[in-house]
Amino acid sequence: MDKALVEKARELLNANYISTTLSTVDKDYNVNIAVISVLEMIDDETVICARFGADRTYANLKETGKGVFMVLLTDGEKSKDGIRVYVELIGDYTEGEYYERIKERLLKTRYASFPLKNCLVFKITDILPVSLLKK
Amino acid sequence: MDKALVEKARELLNANYISTTLSTVDKDYNVNIAVISVLEMIDDETVICARFGADRTYANLKETGKGVFMVLLTDGEKSKDGIRVYVELIGDYTEGEYYERIKERLLKTRYASFPLKNCLVFKITDILPVSLLKK
Repeated sequence: MDKALVEKARELLNANYISTTLSTVDKDYNVNIAVISVLEMIDDETVICARFGADRTYANLKETGKGVFMVLLTDGEKSKDGIRVYVELIGDYTEGEYYERIKERLLKTRYASFPLKNCLVFKITDILPVSLLKK
Repeated sequence: MDKALVEKARELLNANYISTTLSTVDKDYNVNIAVISVLEMIDDETVICARFGADRTYANLKETGKGVFMVLLTDGEKSKDGIRVYVELIGDYTEGEYYERIKERLLKTRYASFPLKNCLVFKITDILPVSLLKK
């Protein structure tokens, strides 16, 4: 994967912007999208993520395992920037090192009052800019 | 569907905010998300949409036919609002009334220089707020 895109993904995902989303799908191809913002890209290929609500997203991941994160930053209506990070679920913990690590992060956010249910672990399969549109 | 949500969907989709996205999926459950903002909710159940780039989104829709639009509005990092509109593809036109209607809209946007490829027609299957999280 492109090094610049990997660095951009790390910067934007780890900022935990309020506009971070995760799109997922069930086995009947019903697509869902949810705001999922408490996460950490812990190395070039791995993202860990706090799951405290997001019941449909969680059920979808357990069924099909695939999704895409998007961080979309807009400057009013003038311009946009961001990243798309394609992932596959490779772990789901309710205790242990990753669970404690993401719990610490959750406690520093606006969602601190929600009990952490799961720490989801994703392998990054691709990273793309927000748009491939060319003139 | 909840009347208030229908009205909110109409208002937010028809504003064509730069932060409007469409999430789709291929038959192997690979999920994609793209900024897709030139669209019009023409009645309580129907959205027409300009397709000028978005090759992967288009291919996904032809394969599985399902997706979800999201309009996410943030007030800095303080708060978020928006809507999720779940859809199924029911039409794909390269001419005709809907095609001309969305072409007129496209010509008034920042994407006016891109030739319109398709007018996609979606049936709305569900509308949800951006978050169902409850304390």
